[in-house]
Amino acid sequence: MSERNRTVPRIGMVGGGQLSRMTHQAAIGLGVDFSVLATSPTDSAALVCGDVALGDDRGLDDVFAFAKDRDVLTFDHEHVPEPVLRELEEAGMLLRPGRAALRFAQDKLRMRTRMAELEAPSPRWRAVTTLEHVVSFAERTGWPLVLKAARGGYDGKGVWMVQATEEAREVVDRAAAEDVPLLVEEKVDFSRELAAQVARSPHGQVAAYPVVETVQRGGVCHEVIAPAPQLAEDKATHAQQLAIEIAHALEVTGMLTVELFETTEGVVINELAMRPHNSGHWSIEGARTSQFEQHLRAVLDLPLGSPKADAPYTVMANVIGGDDPEVYRRYLHVMAEDPELKVHFYGKSVRPGRKIGHVTVMGEDHQDLWERARTAAAYLRGDRC
Amino acid sequence: MSERNRTVPRIGMVGGGQLSRMTHQAAIGLGVDFSVLATSPTDSAALVCGDVALGDDRGLDDVFAFAKDRDVLTFDHEHVPEPVLRELEEAGMLLRPGRAALRFAQDKLRMRTRMAELEAPSPRWRAVTTLEHVVSFAERTGWPLVLKAARGGYDGKGVWMVQATEEAREVVDRAAAEDVPLLVEEKVDFSRELAAQVARSPHGQVAAYPVVETVQRGGVCHEVIAPAPQLAEDKATHAQQLAIEIAHALEVTGMLTVELFETTEGVVINELAMRPHNSGHWSIEGARTSQFEQHLRAVLDLPLGSPKADAPYTVMANVIGGDDPEVYRRYLHVMAEDPELKVHFYGKSVRPGRKIGHVTVMGEDHQDLWERARTAAAYLRGDRC
Repeated sequence: MSERNRTVPRIGMVGGGQLSRMTHQAAIGLGVDFSVLATSPTDSAALVCGDVALGDDRGLDDVFAFAKDRDVLTFDHEHVPEPVLRELEEAGMLLRPGRAALRFAQDKLRMRTRMAELEAPSPRWRAVTTLEHVVSFAERTGWPLVLKAARGGYDGKGVWMVQATEEAREVVDRAAAEDVPLLVEEKVDFSRELAAQVARSPHGQVAAYPVVETVQRGGVCHEVIAPAPQLAEDKATHAQQLAIEIAHALEVTGMLTVELFETTEGVVINELAMRPHNSGHWSIEGARTSQFEQHLRAVLDLPLGSPKADAPYTVMANVIGGDDPEVYRRYLHVMAEDPELKVHFYGKSVRPGRKIGHVTVMGEDHQDLWERARTAAAYLRGDRC
Repeated sequence: MSERNRTVPRIGMVGGGQLSRMTHQAAIGLGVDFSVLATSPTDSAALVCGDVALGDDRGLDDVFAFAKDRDVLTFDHEHVPEPVLRELEEAGMLLRPGRAALRFAQDKLRMRTRMAELEAPSPRWRAVTTLEHVVSFAERTGWPLVLKAARGGYDGKGVWMVQATEEAREVVDRAAAEDVPLLVEEKVDFSRELAAQVARSPHGQVAAYPVVETVQRGGVCHEVIAPAPQLAEDKATHAQQLAIEIAHALEVTGMLTVELFETTEGVVINELAMRPHNSGHWSIEGARTSQFEQHLRAVLDLPLGSPKADAPYTVMANVIGGDDPEVYRRYLHVMAEDPELKVHFYGKSVRPGRKIGHVTVMGEDHQDLWERARTAAAYLRGDRC
């Protein structure tokens, strides 16, 4: 028998990406037993975690084998198919979030339908199976429009901005050929994008993080400013309350991120994610309890930690891979230039466009922080500064 | 060939205790290749680190085998014998800190001799091989006196406070029988204990942390208050300068901790440690750059990070094992009571008197923080509160 303290719970995280990697860091602090199901030994989390199972992180057999020795199962992505989740739950395994919640993060049609039932602020939308659906929708909203695959998209994948009927036809035909369900949404005229993160435990406790501004380019999150500058307190509170209502209504356990558009009329829901999320990486240094620790506390039904910010502003910038794979040698410059900057690398090989890490800076002047974070991220990418 | 980015350096840490465990957490953020030589798979770091070698962390063969695939070797304890360090260096392996520095952390006689050469403030002391050495020393200083084993002690082990000749005789006789070199030191009349931590890189860059107060009981660190309350700025600066001078003179690479007594005449050096140290655990949340990240940056000769504090005060309390091994179930109470408290557990089985974790709180009122940290640590230990 191992000398190890066997009273600590065993958590398994399905998926070996950077979210698992950073959750592992938090699990070490809590002293809980954390393991990862990864598809490859070179997955971001598999490189560092002491307890790694290798297998298909979307397939029943491997997920089932992984889950059976764990007290609770959680996820670093939304891609485990619903029938797999159903079988796990029917076998008595504890999934957090559970299938009933996850399906709203997995399927945008279901999410939009549910948000409509909750009367949560949403863009106009409808399900699309024929081009005529798009055309008649456009008669109400005008062009351009946003077509989305109901399932499987992330980081701008599965989202198409279309300007006119011919462009829409291409997307609809391709989706029909690939049997991908589609929906169409009006293009929201937004001033900026926000994200409201909350944690919810099975106990029903919630903790709401400061609402952040997310700066996206090409559908990919580039920077996050926490809290969102010049966001009126009533608007911030409204966004937090909205996220809390959704978390309760959908019975989310763990972290929930509600991605929002800010418009002149108020906020509009863009996407939901039920896991630690890129918009919350700032919280590792910037909040009293990081989203990764909070996710673990929530899925373990422990009391939640304080989500309060530790500095007036924290800015995070993603490091996106460029042409030069030699990132490490750039540390010398970036660290010498800005000794307060925190560097996070995910151990991933560098490919152009791939998120390979992030940097975080904390302080008082969000414009200054934003420039420092962007400069460091650009330098690490290999851009000329 | 692995997809992993091979341009990142490979660091090996000798020893699998909690210092390795927390260094592993920092290494994940930096994205460097970190491995541990542990004596058992249930060692604190071995439980969580993705790359663990098992072997004798003080023996030539195992340390040599571990070191040969690493770019740089560092240590979570001072117990690798000097002849082993010598062979490693003679084989061209990069040790940071190196043998020339480490011997002053390994041997209190050498340390005291070197501090005297540097004219660094020290208690009166002398080497002891016979009881007469102690008695003649006592004629100058009076009783009680402190006898110390020159090597191998830590956490109050190897240190004996003796009141009179007969007590000294026991220690001297036992040391002679076990062939342990001894020294005697005057008992310093101190108001409190302080610690000055600095990092030094091979490049010669240094970063000095705020000077902290350490509260010891029975030779074991119980709490740390950062910065030391009511420490005059000139005294704090003097302690930092002293630590910097020692780091340069001894050519330390990595973290150096100078444990100090505060007296009416100024500070007096108690001990040196050349690794992350219990007195710096507060820096995980409380400083912009934790001592663990800083140690890695120093050892890798990267530019050092900012050591500045993130809050007016940070208090850390060690969690010492009590009679009840069921620590985890106490999380519910402690986390509910104080959502801002940070819990760190080391994965070690609970034994009375053993350091099994620590807690940290940040804020403005050090007395309040101290009480909160002590209360949480006592509760986690199993004391009635």
